[in-house]
Amino acid sequence: MNVTVQGRTRHYRTVTFDAAHNAVQLIEQRLLPHEFKIVATKNFRETARAITDMIVRGAGAIGATAAYGLAQGAQAFRGSDLKKFTGHVASVYQTLADARPTAVDPVNAMNDVRREMARGETVAEQQSLALAAAEHFADEDVRHCKAIGRHGARLIRNGMRVLTHCNAGWLAFVDIGSATAPLYAAQAAGKKIHVFCDETRPRSQGATLTAWELAEQKISHQIIADNAAGHLMQRGEIDLVIVGSDRTLGRTGEVANKIGTYTKAVLAARHKIPFYVAIPLSTIDWKLKRGFDIPIEERHESEVLGAWGMVENLKAARRAYVRVANPSSGARNPGFDVTPAELITSIITPAGIFKPAALWRQRSKLGFEK
Amino acid sequence: MNVTVQGRTRHYRTVTFDAAHNAVQLIEQRLLPHEFKIVATKNFRETARAITDMIVRGAGAIGATAAYGLAQGAQAFRGSDLKKFTGHVASVYQTLADARPTAVDPVNAMNDVRREMARGETVAEQQSLALAAAEHFADEDVRHCKAIGRHGARLIRNGMRVLTHCNAGWLAFVDIGSATAPLYAAQAAGKKIHVFCDETRPRSQGATLTAWELAEQKISHQIIADNAAGHLMQRGEIDLVIVGSDRTLGRTGEVANKIGTYTKAVLAARHKIPFYVAIPLSTIDWKLKRGFDIPIEERHESEVLGAWGMVENLKAARRAYVRVANPSSGARNPGFDVTPAELITSIITPAGIFKPAALWRQRSKLGFEK
Repeated sequence: MNVTVQGRTRHYRTVTFDAAHNAVQLIEQRLLPHEFKIVATKNFRETARAITDMIVRGAGAIGATAAYGLAQGAQAFRGSDLKKFTGHVASVYQTLADARPTAVDPVNAMNDVRREMARGETVAEQQSLALAAAEHFADEDVRHCKAIGRHGARLIRNGMRVLTHCNAGWLAFVDIGSATAPLYAAQAAGKKIHVFCDETRPRSQGATLTAWELAEQKISHQIIADNAAGHLMQRGEIDLVIVGSDRTLGRTGEVANKIGTYTKAVLAARHKIPFYVAIPLSTIDWKLKRGFDIPIEERHESEVLGAWGMVENLKAARRAYVRVANPSSGARNPGFDVTPAELITSIITPAGIFKPAALWRQRSKLGFEK
Repeated sequence: MNVTVQGRTRHYRTVTFDAAHNAVQLIEQRLLPHEFKIVATKNFRETARAITDMIVRGAGAIGATAAYGLAQGAQAFRGSDLKKFTGHVASVYQTLADARPTAVDPVNAMNDVRREMARGETVAEQQSLALAAAEHFADEDVRHCKAIGRHGARLIRNGMRVLTHCNAGWLAFVDIGSATAPLYAAQAAGKKIHVFCDETRPRSQGATLTAWELAEQKISHQIIADNAAGHLMQRGEIDLVIVGSDRTLGRTGEVANKIGTYTKAVLAARHKIPFYVAIPLSTIDWKLKRGFDIPIEERHESEVLGAWGMVENLKAARRAYVRVANPSSGARNPGFDVTPAELITSIITPAGIFKPAALWRQRSKLGFEK
C-alpha cells in the first residue's frame, strides 16, 4: 500500500527481494506506528532472525519472507555440485522453518518453492527457479488479498461504520491484507466509510498497526477501548464488523482469531449487525473436527500487566514498557478465542463469500486436500 | 479493610477524621497500587482540592469526605455569632460542592450533615453536631456495604470463580465496598474463591485498584484483558459475575456502570452465568424513565490512546504515561454504558436481593422519594 514518508508517497510491500544485493527487504514492523523504516537482511540467517524477532509478522508476510529467504540462501551457493547444493538448501530450509516453529505459513511457502526448484536440472536453473517461485508466492498472496477485497467491497455501502479487531491488514500479508482488503477496495470505489479500531489489548495491534494503516490510507477512523464496542452497537453506531482469522475450521465454520473476537461476534449477533471474517484459503484447516480442540496459546502475563508505548515528556521520546497493574498480582493471558459458526454471517475468501456451513460443501472449490 | 505496610497489618478506612488536629485523613489513591500513603488535609479548602484532584474517588468515599470537610470547616470557625457561623458554613458547603460538580454524593452527604446541625442552638452545639453527623454518615456507608456483603455472600459458593469489572471496592466507599462486599464476606465465612479482574481499559481500575484490594485481602485472583472474559466463560471457567453501578434506574432496573459492563452482561446471559449488580440504595435514580436518557460522559481520548504505569528499567521507577496508539489517530472514549434489566440476574442492596423489575414494586422499602 502507499506510505507517506517525509512528504513523499510511495508504494510498499511488507517484503520484497533485492536481487542485485541478494537481500530481503522488510518493513521493520516493531518500530510501527512510531517510525517507518525498511531493513535489508544480507543472508538467510538474518532473514530467519527477522522472522524470529518479529521484524515481520502476520501469516502471509512471514510466508513470503521464508520463501524469499530460501531463494536467498539458494542464490548464495557457489559452485555447480547439485548434491552439495541440495544439502545446502535443506539446511537453509531448516533454519527458516525453525525461526517460528508454531507457524505453518513459512513451511507451506518453502514447500511451494522447493517443488518448483525440483524442476531445474542444474544448480543455476534451480537457483533461478527458486527466486521465481518466491516472487510467485508473494504475488499470489497479493492476488488473494485483492480478490478478498473485490468480493468484500460489495458488502460495504457508502457511509457505513465498520468495526474491526486486531490487525489483519496489509502489514500481516505482502500487501492489501484480509480484513482490511474490503475497506481499501470500498475506498477505491469511492465509498466513504468510518472504521472503529478495537485497540485489541493486550498487544494493542488495533491501536498501533490497524490505526496506522488506516491513517496512511486516509480512511476516517477512531480507536476505541475493547470495552466500548457494545455501547456503540447499542447506540446504533456500528453497521458491520469485519475481522481476520488465524485458523478457520473447514468442517464446522468455526473461526479462531485474536482474543476478543468471540466477544465482538456475540455482541454483533445480539444487535443483528453482520459479522464477517475475511481469510485467504491457506488458513482453512480441513482436518480438525471441532473448535474446542484448537490449542489456545497462553501468552506471557506481562502483556496484560502493562503496556508498551512511547514515553512522552522526556527530552527524547523513547519506547518503554510501563507496569500498569498492581505489582503483586498475576494475570491470565489467552491469546486467541474461537467463534462458533452460528455467530458468523459469512466468510469472505478469494474464491467468493460463503456461509460458514457452506465451506465443507464447497471444499473441492476451496482447495480441500485429503 | 486491612492493609499491610512494611510487614505491619492495620485496619484502614478510605477517609477518617482526626479531631485533635481538625484534619481529614485520606488514602492517597492516586499512588495506588504502587504506594500506600495516608495524607491529611489541614482545612476544608484542602479537603475540597483532594476531591477535585482525585486523591479520593468513588461515590461513598467522596460523600464521606465532603461530610467530614463540612464538619472540618465548621470546627474551624472561631466565635459564637450564629449568623456569621451560618454564612461561613454556607461558603464551606459551596466550596466542597464545587469540588466535583457532576457528583451527587458530596451534596447528599452535606445535606444530611446540615440537617443535623440545624438542631443545635449555639455555634458550639452545631459544630459538635456537624462532626457527629459526618461520623454517622461514614458509619452508615460502612453499615450499608456490610449489609450488601451479608446478602451477597449467600450467592457465592465455596470454590466459585468470580468475574468483576472496574473497581466497586472498599476504596470507592468508606470501607468494604459494594461489588467486593460479597467477596470479602464469603472469604470471612471460610469460602475459597478465585476472582478474575477485568483490567478495565481505558483507566485500568480493575488491574490497579481491585487487584490491589484483593491482593491485600489475600484473595486468589488474576487480571485479564477485557477481551478474555468471553473465552473464559466459553471454557466454563467463570461461575458468577458481580459488578457495581454508578446509577440504577428504580423504574426499569437498568444499570449504568463503567464502560464494558454491558458487554460482560451480554456474555454472561449467553453462557447462563448469573450476573449480579451490588449497589447502595443512594445510587438508585427513581426519576429517570429510560436508560437511554442517562447521559454518557465522553472522556478524553488520551485515556484510550495510551496508558499510565510505572516505567521500569530506569534507575528509579517512576509513574509515566506512554502513548501506545498510532500518533496520527484519534479515539472515542465513552466512560459508561447501560445494561438492560433482562441481562441482570439480581441486584444486591443493603435491604436485600431484588430482581431488577422488583425495585419499583418495592420502592417504599428502598427509599423512594417522590
